[in-house]
Amino acid sequence: MSSEALTPDRILEATEEVLRRYGPAKATVVDVARALGVSHGSVYRHFRTKAALREAVTQRWLGRTEELLAETTASPDTGPGPEKLRAWLARLFDAKRHKAGDDPELFATYSALIDDSSTVVERHIDILLGQVGRIIEEGVQAGRFTPADPAQTARAVFAATSRFHDPAYAPVWSSEGIEAEFTAVTDLILRGLRP
Amino acid sequence: MSSEALTPDRILEATEEVLRRYGPAKATVVDVARALGVSHGSVYRHFRTKAALREAVTQRWLGRTEELLAETTASPDTGPGPEKLRAWLARLFDAKRHKAGDDPELFATYSALIDDSSTVVERHIDILLGQVGRIIEEGVQAGRFTPADPAQTARAVFAATSRFHDPAYAPVWSSEGIEAEFTAVTDLILRGLRP
Repeated sequence: MSSEALTPDRILEATEEVLRRYGPAKATVVDVARALGVSHGSVYRHFRTKAALREAVTQRWLGRTEELLAETTASPDTGPGPEKLRAWLARLFDAKRHKAGDDPELFATYSALIDDSSTVVERHIDILLGQVGRIIEEGVQAGRFTPADPAQTARAVFAATSRFHDPAYAPVWSSEGIEAEFTAVTDLILRGLRP
Repeated sequence: MSSEALTPDRILEATEEVLRRYGPAKATVVDVARALGVSHGSVYRHFRTKAALREAVTQRWLGRTEELLAETTASPDTGPGPEKLRAWLARLFDAKRHKAGDDPELFATYSALIDDSSTVVERHIDILLGQVGRIIEEGVQAGRFTPADPAQTARAVFAATSRFHDPAYAPVWSSEGIEAEFTAVTDLILRGLRP
């Protein structure tokens, strides 16, 4: 057994590596344990089932984007309302594009895992919607957005920009003109939120 | 051989029926010829390849939606600008939802064919974008929309409503709350087009 303490984080890191190597269909808990030099029982003490381990690693992957966007949401550097919402949407698009483009195999792996775990995705979307809602609320309070229900408006903004964050659209994210399209859609939405 | 004249339209009707029965992977030109009581050579005289026949039948399927929406585009009953654009988007969503919901097998069949024929899809989207562009132009001229480049604005409107017409989203079209989401997104877009 490895001398380093077996933490959930070390298990999740090894799981990501195993998923990358074997793909989601073949990767097993035994592979993860072997990569860590521990028994599979030790892994199961932290994650009770293979499904729980897969959910945790997917949540960790989505969590990176959530943290990145939480920074933008909380940042005082970007003015409230339109500036912040545009920065947030651009950063989301950028994060998703990088995930898809920089490591396509891992992206495909997580896309497959996501299809199997609607709870993890719903939680992820709820967190992102909460951030957009806060940006809208802040913009309304600053008089930069028309008064609106933050939660409902956040859902509309998120739905209207699906093309730039939904993994189903990953194939078009590298297409010519996608940047201009993103700007056109964002402009249209921000005009729609004007007081 | 059947006594009725063998028109392209009769061939396409039979092709749709054969696709529905055997699925896109198994359906052959011989099946189509057999359904019509003619030789496969007679079918090939109208459509030179199996790919050409499949493209034509897909185009015919998409053409039905185009014609329906052309009516809305040209109709003098709906006021110019916001009213017409809302009616057009609602009719598009409705047409797609019905295609997906009323005959899911045929919808899946055509979705598979569409994946194989980007030219047919591009043509379909160009036709729809042209219609939205005309509605925007009309709305701008009537002073109901802010002056904007019709083609570019049409693309932004179409992209922002992807969730309500892109077949990739068909699974969510029957979900609870989708109607409210459609209204929220459409409201946001129409507010963005205000003068």
